[in-house]
Amino acid sequence: MLPANGTAAETEIRTLIEARTKAVRAKAVDAAMSAIAPGIVAFDVVNPLQHLGQQGVRQRAEQWFSSLAGTIGYELRDLAITADEDIAFSHSLNHVNATTTTGKKIDMWWRATVCYRKIDGKWKIIHEHSSVPFDPGTGKASLDLRP
Amino acid sequence: MLPANGTAAETEIRTLIEARTKAVRAKAVDAAMSAIAPGIVAFDVVNPLQHLGQQGVRQRAEQWFSSLAGTIGYELRDLAITADEDIAFSHSLNHVNATTTTGKKIDMWWRATVCYRKIDGKWKIIHEHSSVPFDPGTGKASLDLRP
Repeated sequence: MLPANGTAAETEIRTLIEARTKAVRAKAVDAAMSAIAPGIVAFDVVNPLQHLGQQGVRQRAEQWFSSLAGTIGYELRDLAITADEDIAFSHSLNHVNATTTTGKKIDMWWRATVCYRKIDGKWKIIHEHSSVPFDPGTGKASLDLRP
Repeated sequence: MLPANGTAAETEIRTLIEARTKAVRAKAVDAAMSAIAPGIVAFDVVNPLQHLGQQGVRQRAEQWFSSLAGTIGYELRDLAITADEDIAFSHSLNHVNATTTTGKKIDMWWRATVCYRKIDGKWKIIHEHSSVPFDPGTGKASLDLRP
């Protein structure tokens, strides 16, 4: 069933996001990567400035998942989706709650913007931007902000 | 004239971006704000986590412009625009080259993603995400990366 104000495309994007969220929680790399377009331009939370193409995004997911013990507590807040027939974008505040394999607690929010295009009838992520802001006074990334 | 592979909407977005770039160089707050939608959700390079609505974005532009001496050296690299009739998004690597009013040189790249919607026949920026990544080893924002 479509949401009251939604379009079919919005519902498709919401379904994609939900599947991807579940894949991250389960640390399922292939499922988390399944909507990533080959030519993605990804701006990630940590260095470098950008990843061009799937390979860097996959390596980063593998590295991140393997640094955390057990499943990942992962939720999206304030998700907004804008979609036309063939292109779409979404933004949200993403929260991860997990423990590293060395026992360090991670409880962090970041900002996420995701851009989609329908390619051969399937929605693909062609651009993704994830980040935290920094404190200009200290030059430090702000890892403890809460919405 | 339309670019060879471009659509009318892409050309309109490119024109908007060029006007905004010129406005930033000239530190013209009203011109830099003219395409910002009232309900913008903005994720900025520095704290806080987000700005909701025009007011925060305007204050931030005023603060930034007034912290810099003279005009701003400002350029966009690797600009990619995706546009349908009514929605669009763009991403780029943005470079600022300027001197603060206290004489400090600023030579910095950041990642920018901008999302647009046509409202009452005019393209408006409804979401913007600007950031630098951070170095997980030091926790510092990476202000000296180059593409």
